[in-house]
Amino acid sequence: MQLLVLQGPNLNMLGQREPTIYGSTSLADIHNAMREKATSAGIELSFIQSNHEGVLVDTLHAHYGKIQGIIINPGALTHYGLSLRDGLALMDVPIIEVHLSNVYAREAFRHHSVVAAIAQGQISGLGWQGYLYALDWFIQRKSA
Amino acid sequence: MQLLVLQGPNLNMLGQREPTIYGSTSLADIHNAMREKATSAGIELSFIQSNHEGVLVDTLHAHYGKIQGIIINPGALTHYGLSLRDGLALMDVPIIEVHLSNVYAREAFRHHSVVAAIAQGQISGLGWQGYLYALDWFIQRKSA
Amino acid sequence: MQLLVLQGPNLNMLGQREPTIYGSTSLADIHNAMREKATSAGIELSFIQSNHEGVLVDTLHAHYGKIQGIIINPGALTHYGLSLRDGLALMDVPIIEVHLSNVYAREAFRHHSVVAAIAQGQISGLGWQGYLYALDWFIQRKSA
Amino acid sequence: MQLLVLQGPNLNMLGQREPTIYGSTSLADIHNAMREKATSAGIELSFIQSNHEGVLVDTLHAHYGKIQGIIINPGALTHYGLSLRDGLALMDVPIIEVHLSNVYAREAFRHHSVVAAIAQGQISGLGWQGYLYALDWFIQRKSA
Amino acid sequence: MQLLVLQGPNLNMLGQREPTIYGSTSLADIHNAMREKATSAGIELSFIQSNHEGVLVDTLHAHYGKIQGIIINPGALTHYGLSLRDGLALMDVPIIEVHLSNVYAREAFRHHSVVAAIAQGQISGLGWQGYLYALDWFIQRKSA
Amino acid sequence: MQLLVLQGPNLNMLGQREPTIYGSTSLADIHNAMREKATSAGIELSFIQSNHEGVLVDTLHAHYGKIQGIIINPGALTHYGLSLRDGLALMDVPIIEVHLSNVYAREAFRHHSVVAAIAQGQISGLGWQGYLYALDWFIQRKSA
Amino acid sequence: MQLLVLQGPNLNMLGQREPTIYGSTSLADIHNAMREKATSAGIELSFIQSNHEGVLVDTLHAHYGKIQGIIINPGALTHYGLSLRDGLALMDVPIIEVHLSNVYAREAFRHHSVVAAIAQGQISGLGWQGYLYALDWFIQRKSA
Amino acid sequence: MQLLVLQGPNLNMLGQREPTIYGSTSLADIHNAMREKATSAGIELSFIQSNHEGVLVDTLHAHYGKIQGIIINPGALTHYGLSLRDGLALMDVPIIEVHLSNVYAREAFRHHSVVAAIAQGQISGLGWQGYLYALDWFIQRKSA
Amino acid sequence: MQLLVLQGPNLNMLGQREPTIYGSTSLADIHNAMREKATSAGIELSFIQSNHEGVLVDTLHAHYGKIQGIIINPGALTHYGLSLRDGLALMDVPIIEVHLSNVYAREAFRHHSVVAAIAQGQISGLGWQGYLYALDWFIQRKSA
Amino acid sequence: MQLLVLQGPNLNMLGQREPTIYGSTSLADIHNAMREKATSAGIELSFIQSNHEGVLVDTLHAHYGKIQGIIINPGALTHYGLSLRDGLALMDVPIIEVHLSNVYAREAFRHHSVVAAIAQGQISGLGWQGYLYALDWFIQRKSA
Amino acid sequence: MQLLVLQGPNLNMLGQREPTIYGSTSLADIHNAMREKATSAGIELSFIQSNHEGVLVDTLHAHYGKIQGIIINPGALTHYGLSLRDGLALMDVPIIEVHLSNVYAREAFRHHSVVAAIAQGQISGLGWQGYLYALDWFIQRKSA
Amino acid sequence: MQLLVLQGPNLNMLGQREPTIYGSTSLADIHNAMREKATSAGIELSFIQSNHEGVLVDTLHAHYGKIQGIIINPGALTHYGLSLRDGLALMDVPIIEVHLSNVYAREAFRHHSVVAAIAQGQISGLGWQGYLYALDWFIQRKSA
Repeated sequence: MQLLVLQGPNLNMLGQREPTIYGSTSLADIHNAMREKATSAGIELSFIQSNHEGVLVDTLHAHYGKIQGIIINPGALTHYGLSLRDGLALMDVPIIEVHLSNVYAREAFRHHSVVAAIAQGQISGLGWQGYLYALDWFIQRKSA
Repeated sequence: MQLLVLQGPNLNMLGQREPTIYGSTSLADIHNAMREKATSAGIELSFIQSNHEGVLVDTLHAHYGKIQGIIINPGALTHYGLSLRDGLALMDVPIIEVHLSNVYAREAFRHHSVVAAIAQGQISGLGWQGYLYALDWFIQRKSA
Repeated sequence: MQLLVLQGPNLNMLGQREPTIYGSTSLADIHNAMREKATSAGIELSFIQSNHEGVLVDTLHAHYGKIQGIIINPGALTHYGLSLRDGLALMDVPIIEVHLSNVYAREAFRHHSVVAAIAQGQISGLGWQGYLYALDWFIQRKSA
Repeated sequence: MQLLVLQGPNLNMLGQREPTIYGSTSLADIHNAMREKATSAGIELSFIQSNHEGVLVDTLHAHYGKIQGIIINPGALTHYGLSLRDGLALMDVPIIEVHLSNVYAREAFRHHSVVAAIAQGQISGLGWQGYLYALDWFIQRKSA
Repeated sequence: MQLLVLQGPNLNMLGQREPTIYGSTSLADIHNAMREKATSAGIELSFIQSNHEGVLVDTLHAHYGKIQGIIINPGALTHYGLSLRDGLALMDVPIIEVHLSNVYAREAFRHHSVVAAIAQGQISGLGWQGYLYALDWFIQRKSA
Repeated sequence: MQLLVLQGPNLNMLGQREPTIYGSTSLADIHNAMREKATSAGIELSFIQSNHEGVLVDTLHAHYGKIQGIIINPGALTHYGLSLRDGLALMDVPIIEVHLSNVYAREAFRHHSVVAAIAQGQISGLGWQGYLYALDWFIQRKSA
Repeated sequence: MQLLVLQGPNLNMLGQREPTIYGSTSLADIHNAMREKATSAGIELSFIQSNHEGVLVDTLHAHYGKIQGIIINPGALTHYGLSLRDGLALMDVPIIEVHLSNVYAREAFRHHSVVAAIAQGQISGLGWQGYLYALDWFIQRKSA
Repeated sequence: MQLLVLQGPNLNMLGQREPTIYGSTSLADIHNAMREKATSAGIELSFIQSNHEGVLVDTLHAHYGKIQGIIINPGALTHYGLSLRDGLALMDVPIIEVHLSNVYAREAFRHHSVVAAIAQGQISGLGWQGYLYALDWFIQRKSA
Repeated sequence: MQLLVLQGPNLNMLGQREPTIYGSTSLADIHNAMREKATSAGIELSFIQSNHEGVLVDTLHAHYGKIQGIIINPGALTHYGLSLRDGLALMDVPIIEVHLSNVYAREAFRHHSVVAAIAQGQISGLGWQGYLYALDWFIQRKSA
Repeated sequence: MQLLVLQGPNLNMLGQREPTIYGSTSLADIHNAMREKATSAGIELSFIQSNHEGVLVDTLHAHYGKIQGIIINPGALTHYGLSLRDGLALMDVPIIEVHLSNVYAREAFRHHSVVAAIAQGQISGLGWQGYLYALDWFIQRKSA
Repeated sequence: MQLLVLQGPNLNMLGQREPTIYGSTSLADIHNAMREKATSAGIELSFIQSNHEGVLVDTLHAHYGKIQGIIINPGALTHYGLSLRDGLALMDVPIIEVHLSNVYAREAFRHHSVVAAIAQGQISGLGWQGYLYALDWFIQRKSA
Repeated sequence: MQLLVLQGPNLNMLGQREPTIYGSTSLADIHNAMREKATSAGIELSFIQSNHEGVLVDTLHAHYGKIQGIIINPGALTHYGLSLRDGLALMDVPIIEVHLSNVYAREAFRHHSVVAAIAQGQISGLGWQGYLYALDWFIQRKSA
């Protein structure tokens, strides 16, 4: 099983950026924890972070037909990235949307996700553990 | 650590009710899996399911000051149960909202949660595993 | 054929409550007329009135798999009782929604029914006869 | 007692048009069933179907002061035919609005009726029997 | 100077229809008063009343290039008759919109006119005299 | 018969201000024409123009019980002057609202009048003649 | 004179729950102060607090025709409890709605009350004294 | 303790204006009752009524730093008087908003107050007694 | 292959009406160009223009089961002609909606088409050539 | 070059009023800084502050044709002062709107300006320096 | 004549992506058909597809003043790509917007195009032939 | 003091693009004027223009912790660039938003800025001088 992990705009600043909202764990820390868990479950992960919606879409296309699932934190693209949405939809694999913070407890514009309707599910507000739960869902699915 | 697990209206019908949407696992199955995981982590769980918003609120009050967290699937009360919301808010402990199905891929009225803004986080669309992830968050928090 | 007749909040006050809007016939009068008509058509009716949404939902569950249709006047729950809606939807039998008064000629909040979209049909403004027409629809269906 | 039965645009295609939504009974079948029931109750019915809102309004005026009630299925005019609404309102007799399908379970634009607020009541989703129930209401009224 | 006077749906019932709202003067009375005033000012009037939007549009086309102004009471078409609006717009002459009653003091749907934006002006609530004031505006214009 | 003529903010600049919209006739010209017509009909007119909503309200109170009608062009207060509205409403006499330009063909905020719902009628877009028509309505009423 | 005092969901937690918003006075304290004032004015009070909308409605029905007024703090039911609203409306006695906090200075969903339109009046933001003022209004009314 | 009592537009007409809505007590009567109650509690009151928003704002500024509270009935300025709102906000003392009638049972535009969010509380629909309750709140506060 | 070409209200005035928006080509010119192209492709065209929605609907019914496609410019009925929409939908053949002008660059009310959702496609703003492209689509389809 | 500087409601309290939002500089300080800069550029400034919208409008009229530009901070009138807007529009000179605070980071009602659409430009959130930049724009324009 | 053909995000996946919606023709197939038709009409085409809005905008700028028209399928950027819109607008050449599917029959967010208002016209739902019709429009224009 | 000057999509076309809206000054001209002014005040400026939101976000990150302020004209990203907004917000320095034209006098979609709420202030409609005023604000701040 191969999974693609997509990280949207500004997530590269994790650990530096507004730690009271996003926590002090860096993206590398999260990816290391994910890789460790995935490896022990026989799952291969590819990681990409970009501040460019176009790069995220290009990356999806490059993995077309080669992955069995997607874990994505679209960052602010969550709320307007319809090209990303269409790119995700055409992949035809389960998608889990992860948000570090509880987007429903923040500004009104963060309450709507253009991705959610085509995702399998969504995890928000559980910090970096949310990524591990998303990964675990795929592990359970694989062993089911 | 003591946690309260609240299940809202119609969740008692789980396994019988619309299995294409909600799956065939019963509420008892889910609670057994949660209890097993909790016990091994030294956490005590109380379970309550009710079709009465008032019973859910009464239950919260009865546990006031005696629990350290809440896992709740408010069922359809998610969208209008403001009394439940106020009852949750006054408990002053972390709350994780769980939905079996992806509410954002269903009818428009299911896209808004009156509980989400006061919760720690939300998990939707990951089936009964969502409850275990919610529980795991508390386990991590306890050991942190 | 067994049918469940559900009467929502405040309908127990029928005959006493605002007779210019709701008429002077009592709920017992209506139920008697329905029972008489049903009996002659070989249909068995169960009646329940409650001011508690939870009781209405509990009643639905108790009849799960045992009835072939539902006649319901949800009272004011028509406009916000999403738990009742979900409880009705899982029953998987035809539902006819009845309103004594013409809800579309009253306050704006009465113009929207959260139940209508999952019902077979709706009758409003024809007074207590609306219940008999709903019953007749099931009689015709039975003999079809 | 004389009643006017008005059938709006496209209802002449009944039985041919989208039978999964509207059933296979033709308008003539419905009118025959209504006439039979009316005759035995001593009620005279006039029928008119038109795809022209103007014809429906002209027909109303031609019956001004000569009828005691109206049964109308305005078809799609239900949602925008304000001239028809005004024509109905000036007749000053009870009006029952009938829809073959459950308009509340279809496209959003079908959820609003410009006629409902001036009608006595509304029946939707009960198929051609809805017309007979509307007629029955007038029969009961006559004998009351 | 030639003017066209258009009367929309249900205005033929004037004097009979809801006299508390529309007064007891008939359309013929109004047209007689208008003709008298017009004649003495050397203006020729053509009158048409129809319950058919199509007839009103046909009439406009038939007068294309032959009239110097239009006085119109579109009746309920005021609020949705966009074909009439387009028909009026292409005439390229001043248009005065007249309403017998004060449409701004009635139901909300009567507060918006699809015709007003392309008219010279609007008179509402002044009863049948509104037509004479509209006519007078053309008389003043002619003599200016 | 005594009538009060109220002119709202910026109408003192008439003739100077944006003549393409409001014409080149001054307020004094209009008032002279009105006085002449009123005198010959045995009607006495009081005129007041103010850029202060408070002055308009004070003026209304000062005429309480002493006038039989009001002609008002509220200027931009038309759209937000709720104190003026309440002041007009308490006078308990017929009110005619006049606008020189066709407010329905201008900016969207000019399409709503907070005064219209309590007025007898409204004239817009007929230039300064609108005032004379408003006055004429009172003359007709007096002689009726 | 007999009055019914209804306290909605979560008000039993008063004094414990979020004291910065709701103050530290308990419900028993408030009821004692009310009883003392009522007794000296010859008024009898019945108190009921419930987290169940159904219980509140049942209580209203049980007092039908036996009380002359109602003082109610509907808690969060203020914003969606339409069954409670209908239950209050049928009592046909003056109702005063009391809120401890200023609901208009809190979350947007608290700005709308489904009860207010059928109440005599509303007091919000004056703390527990609001109940005494509501009671005083009935005392004045009794002695008037 | 010094309090400022502000009365907005049209309140000077109290007793004369629409007595079925506002009662027959005059503003002077109310102020006398308030002064009497205040004097016995050792509180000094200043009264101002104006139909000019500017005068109300000027009055606030003139009392800046010299008063300990404000009782205000903004009249129709309640719904649009943002300058008054800002003037009130800068005073930095508790403000109680009073309405004689129940604004929530009247026209929709009266349901929103631009002042409420910065007030301590609001009393509506309790007639002139509302002013006394507002005053009493300050008396209790003083003695607390 | 037989196609029906429907032209809605005011299109008969093409070439005369507002040529800066709609061009100077007449409807006959367009129909001639279409007929020529259709004939050479072995397709038969029927043309109808009407200012009456009812006539357009009648025409559809008369062609029921006899045509394989529809090209329609509904004129202003585009925005409110729900009877026409239903008439088109029941024909169960591909429909191409054509607009001479770019409706999305004009008044806001022209941005919504009630027909578009049931059409195969839409062409707007390409002038009379749009009709030829619509026809070509059917030619390609026939030869495919 | 002569410029008019208009200061709206509550700006006279600058320096005293909510200094965390508006700063501690007084209006006199700002005007002195502006006068100094203007004088050295050969520009004459007139200043007016008023809490009365009417006074601001009167002032505009008094300067009609005598000034070449306007610098205005309309205070809360920014959001509803349509009379002021009309008064500004008729002056036919460039207008620069200045706000001390960033209105877009405050309450939602402060996000809309009824003046902005007729202004040359807008400066917000730059404190009292915003006035100097507005003045500088006119100086540059003069020397251009 | 030189034309630029712009293809937005995800269109590179044509033929692979959701063929039930977008068909099985690849982008290269479409471009070949277009090039063939263009060449025979003496028109030169440049093609660019990108998933990056910025690349599309850069491409526009690079062609500034060198092309006479644009054919664009903006993909999901249709609905939010305002930078692309501004980039198109500044080119000052006719633009034809093409959509393979009928966007008006899909999700609501696809019903609004931010590009349409500045385009010459729009073709949707006619599959890859839509591109040829767009090209044909330019051919006709060239030969006109 | 180091400041970053960010120029969004299409601003590279300044001087060429729609000069009636944006003026004929080029971006290089503006940057030269800014650099000159900055140098004399001892401030160092970095400039970046990009049509790629991702490049703007990357640039922000590259300057994280190295600058003391940002001057940005986000171009059309103003209205939807939430990734840019988040990138700006995390920089934790004062931001001034500049628009060459008065965005509030243009299309409705340009009236809302997703950046404004996190900015220090905004300047619009003052042409290229707006950049110098933004720079001046930082100069004043530095010397304060």
